[in-house]
Amino acid sequence: MRQDHLVAAGQLSRADVERVLDRAAEFDAALATGDPLPARYPETVLALCFYEPSTRTKMSFETAMKRLGGDVVDMGGVDASSVKKGESLADTVRVIQGYADGIVLRHPREGAARMASEFVDVPVVNAGDGAGQHPSQTLLDLYTIREAAGLDDLTIGIVGDLKYGRTVHSLATALTEFDAHMHFVSPESLRLPRSVRFDLHEAGAQVREHTELDEVLPELDVLYVTRIQRERFPDEDEYEKVAGQFQIDAETLAAAGDDLTVMHPLPRVDEIDPEIDDTDDANYFEQAHNGVPVRMALLDLLLSNHE
Amino acid sequence: MRQDHLVAAGQLSRADVERVLDRAAEFDAALATGDPLPARYPETVLALCFYEPSTRTKMSFETAMKRLGGDVVDMGGVDASSVKKGESLADTVRVIQGYADGIVLRHPREGAARMASEFVDVPVVNAGDGAGQHPSQTLLDLYTIREAAGLDDLTIGIVGDLKYGRTVHSLATALTEFDAHMHFVSPESLRLPRSVRFDLHEAGAQVREHTELDEVLPELDVLYVTRIQRERFPDEDEYEKVAGQFQIDAETLAAAGDDLTVMHPLPRVDEIDPEIDDTDDANYFEQAHNGVPVRMALLDLLLSNHE
Amino acid sequence: MRQDHLVAAGQLSRADVERVLDRAAEFDAALATGDPLPARYPETVLALCFYEPSTRTKMSFETAMKRLGGDVVDMGGVDASSVKKGESLADTVRVIQGYADGIVLRHPREGAARMASEFVDVPVVNAGDGAGQHPSQTLLDLYTIREAAGLDDLTIGIVGDLKYGRTVHSLATALTEFDAHMHFVSPESLRLPRSVRFDLHEAGAQVREHTELDEVLPELDVLYVTRIQRERFPDEDEYEKVAGQFQIDAETLAAAGDDLTVMHPLPRVDEIDPEIDDTDDANYFEQAHNGVPVRMALLDLLLSNHE
Repeated sequence: MRQDHLVAAGQLSRADVERVLDRAAEFDAALATGDPLPARYPETVLALCFYEPSTRTKMSFETAMKRLGGDVVDMGGVDASSVKKGESLADTVRVIQGYADGIVLRHPREGAARMASEFVDVPVVNAGDGAGQHPSQTLLDLYTIREAAGLDDLTIGIVGDLKYGRTVHSLATALTEFDAHMHFVSPESLRLPRSVRFDLHEAGAQVREHTELDEVLPELDVLYVTRIQRERFPDEDEYEKVAGQFQIDAETLAAAGDDLTVMHPLPRVDEIDPEIDDTDDANYFEQAHNGVPVRMALLDLLLSNHE
Repeated sequence: MRQDHLVAAGQLSRADVERVLDRAAEFDAALATGDPLPARYPETVLALCFYEPSTRTKMSFETAMKRLGGDVVDMGGVDASSVKKGESLADTVRVIQGYADGIVLRHPREGAARMASEFVDVPVVNAGDGAGQHPSQTLLDLYTIREAAGLDDLTIGIVGDLKYGRTVHSLATALTEFDAHMHFVSPESLRLPRSVRFDLHEAGAQVREHTELDEVLPELDVLYVTRIQRERFPDEDEYEKVAGQFQIDAETLAAAGDDLTVMHPLPRVDEIDPEIDDTDDANYFEQAHNGVPVRMALLDLLLSNHE
Repeated sequence: MRQDHLVAAGQLSRADVERVLDRAAEFDAALATGDPLPARYPETVLALCFYEPSTRTKMSFETAMKRLGGDVVDMGGVDASSVKKGESLADTVRVIQGYADGIVLRHPREGAARMASEFVDVPVVNAGDGAGQHPSQTLLDLYTIREAAGLDDLTIGIVGDLKYGRTVHSLATALTEFDAHMHFVSPESLRLPRSVRFDLHEAGAQVREHTELDEVLPELDVLYVTRIQRERFPDEDEYEKVAGQFQIDAETLAAAGDDLTVMHPLPRVDEIDPEIDDTDDANYFEQAHNGVPVRMALLDLLLSNHE
């Protein structure tokens, strides 16, 4: 990572990803044992600029910075901010770089983080830009896969709403760097968008699409489940049918291989039955927790670059 | 306190309470003198999960954790959170335990804190669960009473809205452990609920009820005043009559004993005339301030238990 | 500054101002070089009580306190607070002084900060009280002017909405202490209020008023631009005419002297063309950034006074 900013997963080479994940593993180990961290940033202040609501991404970055010994300043909601007075994003981030050593930005407009990064000298991390990218989520997904199943010779099934989930698009793109076998499972109406399929094809990815999970379940190392949003469906019956078809429960897992790892970016609604929460297969809470060491590693690399 | 969580005042024995209050006194003294604290938690991060608004409880826990050298992460309001996307409380707290070393939870549903505590391994503190419990408020009330009047051979009058105030119910329950003489003073319509009276009776408490404050005022060591909420009354006249009857002012105090201690959980509206704020009797701001050392002690005991 | 509180710019003598600015310069230098700060407050907790929305003032105070090694507790929005339950400001600040070592207060009511300061023993900083004062903004404006142009023998033009801007009124008052030549440029409808003109006259200030910027531009060392708020105008055409007339762009600056410094309290909307952002004249982002060292200096002086 010779970059000063992280705006898109696509900017990371396989070597970049591995460097972040290796560093994350060091932080993870130190957090678990209470040993000294590999790096600390006690004088560092990180700005959190969330133009859209977020619980887990924001808390996770905040925790990461505080675990590093530093602190955050929070721009607060858009209602309380200069945005309401008509200030441009370029102005806001130029003011905020005078306060903080780095900026984490979530914004409803695709491309917002890249634009912001061109106006400031401190590192900018994209924490979601509309239908665009959310690269730190991809890094924590990759970290979770590597810990649970390994990234070499991986066979992964990605199931649910593949049309609207930016998480899925970024992860799939990143997995092409690792030659993963990818199976996409969804109802016809929620297929992966043509543009993503095209990009994966161009990258030489090994991709297959399905409408039934049963067909591929036994082959999978990892099953990545996503939330199917009720509001995507014109009528309730249609939603119930689709949601029911892809719900993961003990019976589903009985048909899977021995070492399946089940992931979900959370929050879940009904996609995964709580009865499997305590099984060895369930990795979604671990996945959420991995947000902290992965973001510590990311901040460490960007901040040390920048010094 | 061999418990890992604090979900209800009732789980604390007299010895547990005294242990917290003794520890609080140590923190209180150290804060006042600037001497080193008896314990510090510089690497510790506490999660604040408030599903209902709060100023003073939240600021008080936040201050306590920061005075201990640690830090907090705040889930933010419910509007900005995954709750809106339909996430269950059990899922939310399991995600958050991956970020933080402890969870302070306020939730509108009675029993929420106990339920949360069954899903996570980090300590959970109940900061109010609907009409249920608010045990750290009870501890700071007990601390204030002990500092001002002592907990032995105590005669206390509790006045105002005794029907809806969870603060009163918890305090009364806790005081049975100290054999306090309790006088409950309220209009007929705001009497202590039958269930609480029953519990106090079962615990062998020395309890009497009154509709006039004058009858008992001279005997009291402590007068605990609570807010009478306007919205409890069908018409304004009725409210004015009741509110006026129980307002505490200089004239009221002239009829009291020499060493009366006046307490109030705050915020107050008209229950206590500001003219007595600067008298020696007034203890309600001190009571609010005691929230910090008491919550430091509580966090200290839970976090050190947990290590 | 022998005061314990900062409630109005007018309470600061020239010597007081210089003391704050000198101290700010020390903090500024230490922040830039990474050298040890001239003072740190690692155990100090500052309360942020904002009864009105704010991004930059609040973030700036928060950053200042955190850069000093301390921390903040935030009262949160008014909706989430005891204010809604009818608590008086006097009660709220008396509770909060039990949590924090200082209070930064923004409140819609003129005089609120002064009133609050009379009820508490910890330092109170006025961060804006309605149409009243915002003295820390004035200090950072003075600091910026001193760094860029010097405060001796200064000729300044203040342009835009001079009627409603409390920033302008405080700055003008403070500049009388430095015998600055002040030119006020505005449409007739947004002239400086009679009361402010009277005060400046009483203080023996050298003041002239204009409706055209061209007349005075060549003489100016500093051009201080303020936002003209659309909602002040009965109709859109009127607004467009006025806003257009006072927009600062490259052409405007071509008519100015060689070393003009352009300032703006931000947020801007259309008052300054972005084409001049990267010129040497533009000082408004620097001005915003100066909020941090100036507020560090201010907090340092108040907190060290108070010990």
